[in-house]
Amino acid sequence: MSLWLNGIGVSRGVAIGRALRLHASDLEIPERRLAAGDIEHEITRFYGAQRRARDELRSVREQIPLGTPGDIAAFIDTHLLMMDDRSIVDTTVANIRSHQINAEAALKKSRDVLVAVFEQMDDPYLKTRKDDVEHVVARIQRVLMKQAQPSAPAEGAPKFDIAEPTVIVADDITPADIILLSQQQVVAFITEFGGPLSHTAILARSLGIPAIVGLRDARRWLREGETVIVDGEQGHALADPDAQALDFFRAKQQRLAAERAQLDLIRDQPPVSRDGVKIRLLANIELPEDAAHAAGMGAEGVGLYRTEFLYMNRKDLPGEEEQYDAYAKVVSAVQGPITIRTLDLGADKQVDSGARLGPTPNNPALGLRAIRLCLKEPELFRTQVRALLRASRFGQMKIMLPMISSVGEFRQALAVIESARAQLLREGQVLADDVPVGAMIEVPAAALAAPMLARVARFFSIGTNDLIQYTLAIDRVDDEVNYLYDPLHPAVLQLIQRTIEAGVRAGIPVTMCGEMAGDVRYTRLLLGLGLQEFSMHPANVLEVKRAVLDADLRELHAKALRMLASADVEEQQSLIAAIGR
Amino acid sequence: MSLWLNGIGVSRGVAIGRALRLHASDLEIPERRLAAGDIEHEITRFYGAQRRARDELRSVREQIPLGTPGDIAAFIDTHLLMMDDRSIVDTTVANIRSHQINAEAALKKSRDVLVAVFEQMDDPYLKTRKDDVEHVVARIQRVLMKQAQPSAPAEGAPKFDIAEPTVIVADDITPADIILLSQQQVVAFITEFGGPLSHTAILARSLGIPAIVGLRDARRWLREGETVIVDGEQGHALADPDAQALDFFRAKQQRLAAERAQLDLIRDQPPVSRDGVKIRLLANIELPEDAAHAAGMGAEGVGLYRTEFLYMNRKDLPGEEEQYDAYAKVVSAVQGPITIRTLDLGADKQVDSGARLGPTPNNPALGLRAIRLCLKEPELFRTQVRALLRASRFGQMKIMLPMISSVGEFRQALAVIESARAQLLREGQVLADDVPVGAMIEVPAAALAAPMLARVARFFSIGTNDLIQYTLAIDRVDDEVNYLYDPLHPAVLQLIQRTIEAGVRAGIPVTMCGEMAGDVRYTRLLLGLGLQEFSMHPANVLEVKRAVLDADLRELHAKALRMLASADVEEQQSLIAAIGR
Repeated sequence: MSLWLNGIGVSRGVAIGRALRLHASDLEIPERRLAAGDIEHEITRFYGAQRRARDELRSVREQIPLGTPGDIAAFIDTHLLMMDDRSIVDTTVANIRSHQINAEAALKKSRDVLVAVFEQMDDPYLKTRKDDVEHVVARIQRVLMKQAQPSAPAEGAPKFDIAEPTVIVADDITPADIILLSQQQVVAFITEFGGPLSHTAILARSLGIPAIVGLRDARRWLREGETVIVDGEQGHALADPDAQALDFFRAKQQRLAAERAQLDLIRDQPPVSRDGVKIRLLANIELPEDAAHAAGMGAEGVGLYRTEFLYMNRKDLPGEEEQYDAYAKVVSAVQGPITIRTLDLGADKQVDSGARLGPTPNNPALGLRAIRLCLKEPELFRTQVRALLRASRFGQMKIMLPMISSVGEFRQALAVIESARAQLLREGQVLADDVPVGAMIEVPAAALAAPMLARVARFFSIGTNDLIQYTLAIDRVDDEVNYLYDPLHPAVLQLIQRTIEAGVRAGIPVTMCGEMAGDVRYTRLLLGLGLQEFSMHPANVLEVKRAVLDADLRELHAKALRMLASADVEEQQSLIAAIGR
Repeated sequence: MSLWLNGIGVSRGVAIGRALRLHASDLEIPERRLAAGDIEHEITRFYGAQRRARDELRSVREQIPLGTPGDIAAFIDTHLLMMDDRSIVDTTVANIRSHQINAEAALKKSRDVLVAVFEQMDDPYLKTRKDDVEHVVARIQRVLMKQAQPSAPAEGAPKFDIAEPTVIVADDITPADIILLSQQQVVAFITEFGGPLSHTAILARSLGIPAIVGLRDARRWLREGETVIVDGEQGHALADPDAQALDFFRAKQQRLAAERAQLDLIRDQPPVSRDGVKIRLLANIELPEDAAHAAGMGAEGVGLYRTEFLYMNRKDLPGEEEQYDAYAKVVSAVQGPITIRTLDLGADKQVDSGARLGPTPNNPALGLRAIRLCLKEPELFRTQVRALLRASRFGQMKIMLPMISSVGEFRQALAVIESARAQLLREGQVLADDVPVGAMIEVPAAALAAPMLARVARFFSIGTNDLIQYTLAIDRVDDEVNYLYDPLHPAVLQLIQRTIEAGVRAGIPVTMCGEMAGDVRYTRLLLGLGLQEFSMHPANVLEVKRAVLDADLRELHAKALRMLASADVEEQQSLIAAIGR
């Protein structure tokens, strides 16, 4: 009998395949007593498995798809570092020796102690750490167990014998496993946890694989091996479909494929609305190599280039020369303008350097992050700014300051940039004549004070992910509250509109570079709110362009103003729906 | 030579005294080897000290001043619980036995292990826990050391031999120590850390003792025993003042005393502005006993009664009868209206009950808190609502819902309340005819959607502490960023004004119950923004009334509108200053 389930659709497309349920921790760990003479051999076997698991993860690290945000790599890097952690490796070796037991059982003992420590703390913040330990240990166990059962394939990635189109159903999936699975016959992912901005969701979109997250108890409802249809747009999963449903979704698959083919036809067409307004479509890129891909998809420049990757997973801070090389390379690679965001690290994305950059407080998202950290560590900031300015002569660079919350803060950062420019000129360096400095609008205070900020900033870039998070006071990666994450909340729409209006009045450009900008469901609404520059994952450019070509901006703008003026929630929602049509 | 130092003035008043610098961890711990026969005696001595330290802390717990927020008590309770923690007590006893050493040294070993565990974690979130351990251990050590040196007074509280007016200078002070010190000749506190909403600041205000926090390196700059003038309004500390400075500040002390005496004269005067508008001044109270005090200070009701205390520091959840008794008592005690806030606990203020109420995520302030938690745990919420409604017949009760972020959320809570009312009526209970339900406006989204919320809520209450925190995306208790906490940020003023305007248009009352409402520096500005109901610590009522009596609302309102319309930061700041005069 067919069964409909609903979750959060996070990566569009329709897929049909057989359910394969993954259970994270159902490995049965056998304990064997070793003969004294076998102990050194067992230790060697453990080191071998640990090395192999690490190599496996390293190779995953290199297969991260183009355009994937840097924190996914950072996530994998954390696990890579933990692979060598003494509390796992040395303790396991000690356990093999002292208990004279096999590596699997010894590793389990190490894990149990670590997990018990985390649990005893009763500090749920450490859950993430505990999960990391579990993931890393499970990865080594998998290698160990495969060696013990020679029937299973021993090389490389975990094999699930995926010989036919398969829908993975799991509580949650690590980025590493998503990448590995995507190389097999996996056609869709369903997870019980996570939201639209979880790692699973972001990676699935990058890989173009349909996905549903937050489908509670999915593994209880779906049976092993049964046919499942996944609609990653609607968030529907349909188990054991009848012939009629199969026909319907196969037709939808074909329609989507045809639409994708259609999109290729507008690749070289300029994004001009029906009433003749030219819209700018830009790309968010992660690596210089992404630039060509972005241009190929029709992006006319880069609206967001992140710089955090230079700082993460290393013991020291990157010097001016190293940064200069990186920026020069990406600025040269991009045709058209490129907006580079200064360091957006903070307590939550800790720089792993000897010099500690601020503590992790109770609420890192409300802490010493981004521009706040840079202003507190002027040397760190000055080094980046010097490298940026020196690389500016290779193209059309703009500098974007993240987490700005007041005019004073922006001015303070601007003063550092101006003094670095003066210093570089005194040193005889060649710089671009003009490197506009703009503000990310991602703190509610900045959106509300946009008319003031527009007097000092040369451009605005709306970061919707954080703006929504702070406006609604919810942590979007917190499963308990991410149901409240709502880009269409009237407060969010107001802040977007007011930011755009302030920019227009002051005559400075306003871009949007959050997830919302690349989500075609919101394109008409954003055009109606007055947005004329969109920066997004390159994969979304053509779809958004399609929506721009079909739009009449005057009509949308009139509708949007009427929508914003409504003080009735239901009316506003139906006016929003009308704009989207 | 005189020395001027500047910190954050958090408790007004001028004090003159001798500096006494406290060093938290400079106790020298002697290690002595015990004879085998002395071990049991030493263990008894340790238990005695541990009991005495606990009793000391219990007595502090009972001396918390009237009107102190409940989380201060909770803070002390945490230490009380930790006093009995096995990882401290049992481990120390085991150390005495196994190492045959004195209790002080054995306790130090326990502490070292615990602290090392916290530090090894490298998880700075645990710093708070580590600090708790240090505080608790230091408290027991103090008792142990005093016994060892019979010259020092042995009874009760830690004695610092404070025989003359003294200014305490410390890195930070625990609430317990502030209460103990306030009973001696302590005239002011200076701390190196903390902000305007730190425990030190809140307690100092409750106790009416001048205080400066966030004065970095204060213990390095100020010499032991030298005379220090503390101006807790300006945040100035003046060391080794000359005769002229002494004269100036003594005159200021007298002027402040005279002003206080003046305030007594307006105690019974109604708070009516110069142009004849009646303003409502209400009190935030913590306990039924505070009600009489608040009325005595001229408050005409209670604008905020918190209910968290019922849930904290216990193993189970409070039942309907227990809650009913508590609410009935306070509602009966209050003359005039009383606004009771439903449970505002969450991941950050964890209920210490067997049934775990949600996990602590990475950013508890952006997590499952307050109304979100209540809607997720309907039984928890229904029990409170039933108790509230049953107690409503004893007075003029209003119910206030915290952390509302959308109309849908408010409606969902209202549905629970309505269904509880219907059920109670079916059970034949007598309820007040009308118990208005209102929304706390403390999330930016709620302030921005105020016109929509005003259609469903019967009143608004602006919670400035959280509203400022979320609008500026800063955690106000995070020392690294609390310099950004700014009630006068243009974004904050806009949100306040828009909330008030939405309330006025819809014809519903708007109260403010955050710290800002009781701070006389903001009274004229808030009156200008249209605020007509202020709820505050009872100690502030007379001062705010003084400002109301002197104010011309029409004039202030015109000035405030001009100020809000300015898009120039400097101009706006000077217009704000002009309103305050």
